[in-house]
Amino acid sequence: MNEFELISTLTRDLPRNESVVAGPGDDCAVLDFGLPEKLLLFKTDAIVEGIHFAKDTPPEKIGRKALARCLSDIAAMAGTPQAAVITLGLPKKFDTVYVEKIYDGLNALARKYGVAIVGGETTTNPERIFISVALLGTVARGRQVLRSGAKTGDAIFVTGELGGSLLEKHLDFDPRIAEAQWLAEHFPIHSMIDLSDGLAGDLRHVLARSGVGADILKSAVPVSRSAKLQVQKNPSKPAFAAALTDGEDFELLFTVASGDAVALLDAWKKKFPKLKLSCVGKIVTGSEITLRDKTGSQKLNAHGYVHFA
Amino acid sequence: MNEFELISTLTRDLPRNESVVAGPGDDCAVLDFGLPEKLLLFKTDAIVEGIHFAKDTPPEKIGRKALARCLSDIAAMAGTPQAAVITLGLPKKFDTVYVEKIYDGLNALARKYGVAIVGGETTTNPERIFISVALLGTVARGRQVLRSGAKTGDAIFVTGELGGSLLEKHLDFDPRIAEAQWLAEHFPIHSMIDLSDGLAGDLRHVLARSGVGADILKSAVPVSRSAKLQVQKNPSKPAFAAALTDGEDFELLFTVASGDAVALLDAWKKKFPKLKLSCVGKIVTGSEITLRDKTGSQKLNAHGYVHFA
Repeated sequence: MNEFELISTLTRDLPRNESVVAGPGDDCAVLDFGLPEKLLLFKTDAIVEGIHFAKDTPPEKIGRKALARCLSDIAAMAGTPQAAVITLGLPKKFDTVYVEKIYDGLNALARKYGVAIVGGETTTNPERIFISVALLGTVARGRQVLRSGAKTGDAIFVTGELGGSLLEKHLDFDPRIAEAQWLAEHFPIHSMIDLSDGLAGDLRHVLARSGVGADILKSAVPVSRSAKLQVQKNPSKPAFAAALTDGEDFELLFTVASGDAVALLDAWKKKFPKLKLSCVGKIVTGSEITLRDKTGSQKLNAHGYVHFA
Repeated sequence: MNEFELISTLTRDLPRNESVVAGPGDDCAVLDFGLPEKLLLFKTDAIVEGIHFAKDTPPEKIGRKALARCLSDIAAMAGTPQAAVITLGLPKKFDTVYVEKIYDGLNALARKYGVAIVGGETTTNPERIFISVALLGTVARGRQVLRSGAKTGDAIFVTGELGGSLLEKHLDFDPRIAEAQWLAEHFPIHSMIDLSDGLAGDLRHVLARSGVGADILKSAVPVSRSAKLQVQKNPSKPAFAAALTDGEDFELLFTVASGDAVALLDAWKKKFPKLKLSCVGKIVTGSEITLRDKTGSQKLNAHGYVHFA
């Protein structure tokens, strides 16, 4: 059983109450606590030494990444992050200065985005450090963007460039908070997700929740410089495959009615001239992802991977 | 550097924003998101295999404990728990049925207290399972009870019986949600904390935040049957020492003006006849904890332990 199958099993019959607007299965939970103009967003995520960061990763970047991942999920709902609590798992012997530097990185990013760090716990995890962050945000009532709203005919957009994040970007990425808020404020965005598992995998989450399929134009996928550099290390994975299946891009993928696509792209270029926005394909009926180029089309398999001849 | 010194270092200069009513240093953070009649409570906690539960602990009880610990912190603020998100760290190979049973125990307790489980993540932690819970609650505006409100002359109460929790109770305890809400509704409770580190250690947190000391009457401390049984296993730790310093009792400690003490005790006996409530001493000036009995008095040392002759 893989991670997604396990989560699907565990979330089948979870306790709910009247505050739940959207439970598991989206980037954040959406809760209605009775605020007149706002809904709450609630998210948790953890990073573990040896899995999400290395023993020699600069500690400031570890703390930064732990929070940035949650911020990216708040962005994917078009929300505003507000307050976080941190649980730190530490070996029995730890270097205090190293732990303080983890917090320095986390705090600096929190200050940048106006997030209060309002609590923390430490516990023992003998073999390796972990950092679990829970983040609370808000979104204007009715302006939350879920994964489930994609409609046949929608244009599919992605921000930035994809692939090769592990070379560098996974420790330095900027969560797309301002961009997502601007999008939701100016255009009727149908669905949105942040790219943590790779374009192919995350697009599939949107398709599954929305009951639709997608056609992706291969030449339109923005392949990052890192994805191209990575080919030198690992020639068996072409740069395009990296752009499709590498995780931790933390860019936004969203869909919008095709009639809004050109106006959105024009307005984006004026508002965010330094951040690429690419229309990579469209939503179609069905449930598959089809890759198209001049020579024809091929279907992506269930796990987001495809055989590249 | 121990856990408390580390937390004190890390929380010295954390990012804040205008929503923070009470940040780190209490049982929960208290946040004002603009709800007319309520404040939010926010808490995180994690339990780790081999530290907080054993390899052979029934998995339902592991899940139960993970949530119950956070519920106890909401209780200590006189709050109502509302919604939780869960992060599960799992070795690469895990037993799906075992993980489902962890969730069964967690879900059953959540249902009992009306808590929605609104999201979760799984991640890899190669050597051992951990479960990190973040819990969101509410409290009537102005009715939150902090650690910092103890006043000279206050009577100090504890619920239940103390010590020896690891024999059994740490897996089965009932968070004192209803009791704490009733207390805050009917009496001006000055300060409250849940007993997770032992009476001596947790009382010291209240004293430090309130700038006061305490006199404890040894004969009034409710020593549990488990604490007495434990002496047979470990004769070097008398039952009274266990009641004072064992962790994970998850009872409430609170202080109230001495003039309210008798009325409170009478009303409690009618409302909660099955749950013992003990007045164990009083708040005094200074910063020390003094233990008193017929023969005299002795001071507890800084770490909550005392030499028992």
